[in-house]
Amino acid sequence: MSIVVVGSVAFDTIDTPAGKVERAIGGSATYFSIAASYFAPVRLVAVTGEDFTGEHRSVLEKRGVDLEGLSVVEGGKTFFWEGRYGKDPNERDTITTELNVFDGFDPQMPESYRDSEWLFLGNIDPDIQLKVLEQMEGDPYVGCDTMNFWIEGKPDSLRELVKRINILFINDSEARMLSGEINIVTAARAILEMGPEALVIKKGEHGAFLFTGDFRFFAPAYPLEEVVDPTGAGDSFAGGFMGYLAGSGSRKGQHLRRAMLYGTAAASFACERFSIERLAALSQDDLDGRFRALIDIVSVENP
Amino acid sequence: MSIVVVGSVAFDTIDTPAGKVERAIGGSATYFSIAASYFAPVRLVAVTGEDFTGEHRSVLEKRGVDLEGLSVVEGGKTFFWEGRYGKDPNERDTITTELNVFDGFDPQMPESYRDSEWLFLGNIDPDIQLKVLEQMEGDPYVGCDTMNFWIEGKPDSLRELVKRINILFINDSEARMLSGEINIVTAARAILEMGPEALVIKKGEHGAFLFTGDFRFFAPAYPLEEVVDPTGAGDSFAGGFMGYLAGSGSRKGQHLRRAMLYGTAAASFACERFSIERLAALSQDDLDGRFRALIDIVSVENP
Repeated sequence: MSIVVVGSVAFDTIDTPAGKVERAIGGSATYFSIAASYFAPVRLVAVTGEDFTGEHRSVLEKRGVDLEGLSVVEGGKTFFWEGRYGKDPNERDTITTELNVFDGFDPQMPESYRDSEWLFLGNIDPDIQLKVLEQMEGDPYVGCDTMNFWIEGKPDSLRELVKRINILFINDSEARMLSGEINIVTAARAILEMGPEALVIKKGEHGAFLFTGDFRFFAPAYPLEEVVDPTGAGDSFAGGFMGYLAGSGSRKGQHLRRAMLYGTAAASFACERFSIERLAALSQDDLDGRFRALIDIVSVENP
Repeated sequence: MSIVVVGSVAFDTIDTPAGKVERAIGGSATYFSIAASYFAPVRLVAVTGEDFTGEHRSVLEKRGVDLEGLSVVEGGKTFFWEGRYGKDPNERDTITTELNVFDGFDPQMPESYRDSEWLFLGNIDPDIQLKVLEQMEGDPYVGCDTMNFWIEGKPDSLRELVKRINILFINDSEARMLSGEINIVTAARAILEMGPEALVIKKGEHGAFLFTGDFRFFAPAYPLEEVVDPTGAGDSFAGGFMGYLAGSGSRKGQHLRRAMLYGTAAASFACERFSIERLAALSQDDLDGRFRALIDIVSVENP
């Protein structure tokens, strides 16, 4: 079953101890789309400038991503981000953010997307996320990302949004800020009381927690020996997760648990090369192999 | 099979957001002994002052801990530590450390302990840890803890020690310091090359990693809603781990993996009350229940 993603498509200049890339393809919706594309058909809603050429679009087309919802602003420039990571991949400095055509992004859902049963709202203004929700027909299963900037700046809109989604993806510091609780378990309970039926708290190299009213699940991060470029890991996680779920057509606990591991697998591949280089070149065997490795690493049955 | 532990027995005054206790029983060897006692007979080597009375000793005696190796210095005072934790249990300030009789601790292994097949060297001067090793007969399976203070202050002695032990327990920042590597997987490989056949890297609330030449295993921390007092969690982890292993009489991977979960279970109980209050009052059902909960939280098979 198809999944719609709404978010950013960008160019990223990224400097890490492993090297540097200039104006590589990035953006939350890009990472999400590519990760999800291994599991389900993906429909993209985003905006670029004219500098996002056919060559760039072909990266998404090769993964079968439907680009009907990708609008191009004539004479405009694509969202640009430049950042530098320290030896510790958790240390990140933003050097430049140029919103360009992403400033004032007003997502228009193509008619052909509106009956999709799965939807992911990338990290944008919660008022815009709400407007996107209103463009959907039926009752899709909705995943949503957000960040500290919106938790602080638009708390009321975010609360309204969180009531209306199925699953929220945030990191641990965002969960603490949104709930006002330091303890992650208490924070999770407080957030679930705000409305969503499920919550994923991402902890980067420390793995990710899934909380629902019925159960808790923990996925360890895949232990990588070298993190070349952590950009997009969280979006790839959400893409692998939501894509797997859409592909399974199920919202059952067993599938949510497996989705956690496929999300983790996708995120780990995203970190292994710059930009989407590794993520866009996976086989089903790569993903299944890492899924099994993640099961193996927590299994007490092995000899 | 019996396990010998060498380390500190102390009085702790602990202030946390949940309350305060004065001169409660603490020390690395105390937490270790109690946690290990649920799985195997424990033999303690430590030193106290006369202020560690029969009442205090009875806490260990009730858990069946052999106290032949617990020497009492006439007129001496027991090691005392005072600390305060912030709202975030990872924030800890030491207010007072009085080594007292622990200063110059020269562990003497009773004859009856020397043929033990399992040994744990708590966090003390690596030169003393080496002297303890030399007092053992046969070829015990040796676990060892250390800390930044010794990694910086006695690197040569620590290197010599690490060559001669089976398994090292350290936290992530210590692993980085000992190896000079930031990445935890690379750090683990470098430490295994120093000699031990296994390495546990403890990450507190983020769980613990076991590395061997053959496999890697990850144990999530048990998600506690309230951490009343994190003192002794690492020692309780090592106690549950080494105790389970000694009780199983096996060094096989399957038992090492299970030991990780029993260590995690013991550590989580230690945090639920001040001092050893909860840890000393467990049933086998408590430990087995938490062991199963830790398997459940990572299982993709559940519905």
